[in-house]
Amino acid sequence: MSAGVGPGPALPVPDGLVEAFWAYERALMADDVATLDALFAPASTTLRGDAEGLLVGHDRISAFRSGRGGAPRRRILQTHVQVTDPDHALVVAVTELERGGRGQQTQLWARFADGWKVTAAHVSVPAPALDRRIWRVVGDPLVAGVAAGPLTGESVAVKDLFAVAGQVIGAGNPVWEREAPVERGDAAVVAALVEAGADVRGIARTDEFAYSLAGVNAHTGTPPNPAAPHRLGGGSSSGSAAAVALGHATIGLGTDTGGSIRVPAAYQGLYGIRTTHDVLDRHGMLALAPTFDAVGWLTRSADLLALVGEVLLPAAEVRSRDLVVVPELLRLADTDVASALDRWVADRGLVVRETWPLHDLDRWREAFTTWQAWEAWQVRGAWISAALEAHGPDVLSADVRGRFETARAVTMAQAHAAYDVVVEARARIRELIGGRVLVLPSAPTVAPPLGPGLDARLQDTRLATTRLTCLAGLGGLPAVSIPVRTAAGLPAGVCLVAEPGADLDLLRLAQTLA
Amino acid sequence: MSAGVGPGPALPVPDGLVEAFWAYERALMADDVATLDALFAPASTTLRGDAEGLLVGHDRISAFRSGRGGAPRRRILQTHVQVTDPDHALVVAVTELERGGRGQQTQLWARFADGWKVTAAHVSVPAPALDRRIWRVVGDPLVAGVAAGPLTGESVAVKDLFAVAGQVIGAGNPVWEREAPVERGDAAVVAALVEAGADVRGIARTDEFAYSLAGVNAHTGTPPNPAAPHRLGGGSSSGSAAAVALGHATIGLGTDTGGSIRVPAAYQGLYGIRTTHDVLDRHGMLALAPTFDAVGWLTRSADLLALVGEVLLPAAEVRSRDLVVVPELLRLADTDVASALDRWVADRGLVVRETWPLHDLDRWREAFTTWQAWEAWQVRGAWISAALEAHGPDVLSADVRGRFETARAVTMAQAHAAYDVVVEARARIRELIGGRVLVLPSAPTVAPPLGPGLDARLQDTRLATTRLTCLAGLGGLPAVSIPVRTAAGLPAGVCLVAEPGADLDLLRLAQTLA
Repeated sequence: MSAGVGPGPALPVPDGLVEAFWAYERALMADDVATLDALFAPASTTLRGDAEGLLVGHDRISAFRSGRGGAPRRRILQTHVQVTDPDHALVVAVTELERGGRGQQTQLWARFADGWKVTAAHVSVPAPALDRRIWRVVGDPLVAGVAAGPLTGESVAVKDLFAVAGQVIGAGNPVWEREAPVERGDAAVVAALVEAGADVRGIARTDEFAYSLAGVNAHTGTPPNPAAPHRLGGGSSSGSAAAVALGHATIGLGTDTGGSIRVPAAYQGLYGIRTTHDVLDRHGMLALAPTFDAVGWLTRSADLLALVGEVLLPAAEVRSRDLVVVPELLRLADTDVASALDRWVADRGLVVRETWPLHDLDRWREAFTTWQAWEAWQVRGAWISAALEAHGPDVLSADVRGRFETARAVTMAQAHAAYDVVVEARARIRELIGGRVLVLPSAPTVAPPLGPGLDARLQDTRLATTRLTCLAGLGGLPAVSIPVRTAAGLPAGVCLVAEPGADLDLLRLAQTLA
Repeated sequence: MSAGVGPGPALPVPDGLVEAFWAYERALMADDVATLDALFAPASTTLRGDAEGLLVGHDRISAFRSGRGGAPRRRILQTHVQVTDPDHALVVAVTELERGGRGQQTQLWARFADGWKVTAAHVSVPAPALDRRIWRVVGDPLVAGVAAGPLTGESVAVKDLFAVAGQVIGAGNPVWEREAPVERGDAAVVAALVEAGADVRGIARTDEFAYSLAGVNAHTGTPPNPAAPHRLGGGSSSGSAAAVALGHATIGLGTDTGGSIRVPAAYQGLYGIRTTHDVLDRHGMLALAPTFDAVGWLTRSADLLALVGEVLLPAAEVRSRDLVVVPELLRLADTDVASALDRWVADRGLVVRETWPLHDLDRWREAFTTWQAWEAWQVRGAWISAALEAHGPDVLSADVRGRFETARAVTMAQAHAAYDVVVEARARIRELIGGRVLVLPSAPTVAPPLGPGLDARLQDTRLATTRLTCLAGLGGLPAVSIPVRTAAGLPAGVCLVAEPGADLDLLRLAQTLA
């Protein structure tokens, strides 16, 4: 170890520091959480950062340690000590990981009554070949844009529900992926993007069969939320969203049946569009519930969101529309999200407030969920049954399995009754919106924090979310999500919904309002 | 900004610190190298680390800055200050990159007579979707092992010279890659690895057409050397080697014509084998110089190196062989490498020293180079000529272009004369080694440091390297590289060379000696 920092003479390495450093290292390799906790300063200002984000406060750091199941095996190759005074020193260590590559650990140590403790740590390890939580396959590029076009220079993260020639459709499930045939052509929208000059960066993870809004996958891990570290990223277009938020791709191609574009857009501070039902060719896209399934995409700018729309959507004259806010819908969101939307609306001063007769909303949501389940079972039930039979329950993530089990139990009578409500709701929602733009929260909450209790909370979150997102799903309507921030600085989404075919109007509006 | 560290009362943020922090940030965004240099403490102990490794000393940090052409655009999202005493403080900043994602910067600041300066910095930014210096395409996996077998659980980085079904062979050149047909089947050795249960992780970069030993590619960047940061990784199996060293894959499949496995093995502290010429089926492998081309692979352990050999190579009874060191060959290496090999040999006490009549060595090397060039032009000249014509000189990296230009100038008479020497050398080398194992340096130098003057030094390095590596090439002999360390701790390689077909003997020997 060497020592020395600043303009004065080098100070000796203080007693006990080296021992504390090695005690920490031994405890880390033994995953001795109690010792690690004791060696981190017991303060709300203690820091620990890595590629997943910065944790502030001893308690959050301790909770992180308890959940992670140990650090990767490593050895210390070099240490450099900078002693600032007899009670404080920085220790920089170069690590060599057993699995390969080198990392760096920077720790500030302070002397407490009961010994040396870390007050701040910054840890780096080599990135994996690909982040398998986000991607199934990536290339430089995976598919090159065919010619110069409006999307030259852009790169697409293709949700693993769309065909890419030479690849299988994995649908977020390893058994499905293993059995899937190699696709001989691109899905219609993938082909259109490549024709317009965009590269395909890779195939991005999805919640299994897109039947979730959480952004969780038990097989390949929960993709990170780059805009809100240590929180869920939302789904089911989870990999496409994380890829765009991280700058791995500029366009995240996805699907939206009940919110699978709008929810990750809101959670991750992205722009997103769910297109009008049936306006885009779904050829080569794996269905979840064909009555509601829609193509969508995510970007980091309103301009690129619109540009993709100009490439994919039928040309139409753009018209301007009045905006309307419905307070009852705002009240379905958490206060922080509702306030953010209120502020956004007030800043623009454009909006008509209107009270709608929404006593049927829960009946509509339930009909949406039931008919979605019925259709999901029609298209995927046979495979799900066979896979559960052959491989046992772990073939599916627990939440998705639960949803398919509910779907299996839907009777034809229930389905038909639900469909009648769907038709009624569709007409009513279209009538209420008319030629205007409904402004509502893209999701009722900010991204839920990871950690204990998450699974239990997800059920409630899903219910509350679907109550808002089902409107565009039921109506077959286009919806654009615009990022806003809550007072606490967390991402949320403002959703603009309009009549069928108004996709380009919404995209233009988002550009104006952004 | 908050402040506070350790058990005592929180100290106020000292005067001038915040201003210095922001001055640094402005200078970074302006790539104002002079200001950045002035804001880093002028000491040999000043530290700066990122994913590429730790730089120690103000001068090395300054040289790095001058060469990198600016930092990625970012903004500061959060700062946390820990003041250890009135003259020292840690500043941890969360950054948001314009291209997406978040990073962290940890800096220790000290007050000097002329203001605050950074004494240590640790910088993290989000990893890209894939490291395009190492990979062209990666998957989780890209190709799954077909069934349980001896290589189940292993993953292969396939050098971009081998066919993988559904992919093109890119050969390290973007124009070639664009024009290449999609392969309908796997190369023979790729198929054999997948049959044995290994997954293909992806397709790894190569120096263009494998016609280099440097590990440089002007189109996709110089792959990192994870075992010797800020140094060349060696090539041409450069991506395969870096992938294995980083733990992205466990097996790096490559080729070795004149050292393309042995050199990166030596530079990166890996095990590597160049197999006997023609012992493995080269079907689906792009040729460089068929007289010398051999399949090879790299691993992080002698056991896995041998296990792959057992899968790929014809079964043979393993026999033990005497080892022989030739001092003249050792003298062709730099002192640090020769000493490391001497120490390795002495530690094992097994080796016969023998003087060989090597006055012809330079004539042999020249014949090797000339015949390699002739063949390279026969197999690739037409394409190279057309590509230079159509796209101009930048279609090839300068060093590879220079080599092909030399190759084009080789006359048939020169080639035939060279071939006669090749035949003579082959017989002589085989005779000298006989049934024994020749022990020599895998490369005569440690990995050359990156930075100014590298291009000029590379030509000399290549000449010195080929003088050693051409022996196995000329002889068509198997060669195994075993990692050693120089006194300074840098990776180097001990190369074991034996008669044709002795591959398994060498692999077993490497296991014993490792």
